[in-house]
Amino acid sequence: MRLDLDDGYLCRKEIQTRSRFSACAARRCHRLAGHEGKCQEMPFVGDLAATHPRVAAKIERDSVMTTGAAWKSEEAGPNRILRWVMLLDDNELLEFGIDMATLQPQVISKLREKAASYDECIEVAMWLTRLVYNMPGAPEPPAELGTYLEHMFGPTPEEKTTCVICLETIPFSLFQAARRGKAAIETCHKDPRVHSAENVGFAHRECNIAQGAKTLEGFYDWIERILRRAKPGLFPSQLRL
Amino acid sequence: MRLDLDDGYLCRKEIQTRSRFSACAARRCHRLAGHEGKCQEMPFVGDLAATHPRVAAKIERDSVMTTGAAWKSEEAGPNRILRWVMLLDDNELLEFGIDMATLQPQVISKLREKAASYDECIEVAMWLTRLVYNMPGAPEPPAELGTYLEHMFGPTPEEKTTCVICLETIPFSLFQAARRGKAAIETCHKDPRVHSAENVGFAHRECNIAQGAKTLEGFYDWIERILRRAKPGLFPSQLRL
Repeated sequence: MRLDLDDGYLCRKEIQTRSRFSACAARRCHRLAGHEGKCQEMPFVGDLAATHPRVAAKIERDSVMTTGAAWKSEEAGPNRILRWVMLLDDNELLEFGIDMATLQPQVISKLREKAASYDECIEVAMWLTRLVYNMPGAPEPPAELGTYLEHMFGPTPEEKTTCVICLETIPFSLFQAARRGKAAIETCHKDPRVHSAENVGFAHRECNIAQGAKTLEGFYDWIERILRRAKPGLFPSQLRL
Repeated sequence: MRLDLDDGYLCRKEIQTRSRFSACAARRCHRLAGHEGKCQEMPFVGDLAATHPRVAAKIERDSVMTTGAAWKSEEAGPNRILRWVMLLDDNELLEFGIDMATLQPQVISKLREKAASYDECIEVAMWLTRLVYNMPGAPEPPAELGTYLEHMFGPTPEEKTTCVICLETIPFSLFQAARRGKAAIETCHKDPRVHSAENVGFAHRECNIAQGAKTLEGFYDWIERILRRAKPGLFPSQLRL
């Protein structure tokens, strides 16, 4: 599911930023080609930003920045950093003031795993937006945005957005729920080492925690092994021929 | 599996401590009745304390103190506290300088869940010791200690100690393993709200994290529901009559 961001549908003009990382990757406009007014990088979250700013901010943040929740600690290094910056090699990073040599090997590998190109991040942001609007109880997207998302991902499916892991429908209202300041919905990765629209979605926090560093398939295999030992009666007997 | 600590096998004399909590519960000697020399509260971990001090310290700590890993944060309040102190009511706690009113409700309920009587804690410590010695690759207990543990829990079973959750055997060597300072073996509770020998054991860290706040049965039910959705082909069809 790689999108073609340069098929002429989108503006894609470079947007000037004052970020010290602007030399790493050009940030681009994703309004429609030939739009009037100012360029915008993520116009597709603009409607959510007006009505549900925390949901919009989550999409922007999780699509673009490395996530740090699982390894937040003193030795964790730059806790959130632009994912495409982590594509640079150690020498290039040093020029940006990031000295990977000072970090623990596990932290380095975590950071490197979360690297993704700028376009992949934008596609993830678009995909998360589509998933949000397809949650039960979500607001309707403005007509123009609905068309935009259908151009990118095809017609909105009948089936509502589910947790990537447990496959139960996730209601939009769950964005409001939080336990001890921890959001009940997290973005998650079928393969924690791949950040692409195809591989990313939403999950219940408890599902995401249970999956941990495993791939989704690895997680299913693991819980199957547990259940086969704990509840062997659930499975067809191998001996019955 | 409540043990009778007062069946005359054990000394059970009160041990004086200088803890500010000594008024809450008398700490007692668990050497054999009629022993010579000094009283000791947990003589059964003495051998491990000499050869594997971190394992012994873990047994002593996890049996007696509330655990805080899952809710360590600024608002977490007294992160580790004697479990039987958490049996006191708010006014009694205030006399010990612990003001529960200053804590978040979730923190209070976590702390209260972890309350247990002094004797329950001692039984848990004995049981964890028995489980450790029954891990593959564990040291042999001194003969006298072997007899002691068999008096408490009956003959050592053929089956080696398993993870309470995934039911795979846990090798003793896993006590040495750690990822980012997090031990690979954790003590765990089949019901997180009950601290008794019957309900406590060891688990892989990843298993314990996946179980989270659920009971073990609740966890199995949960992963069964996930697998039934994710891998329906694993289960016998309900329609086949």
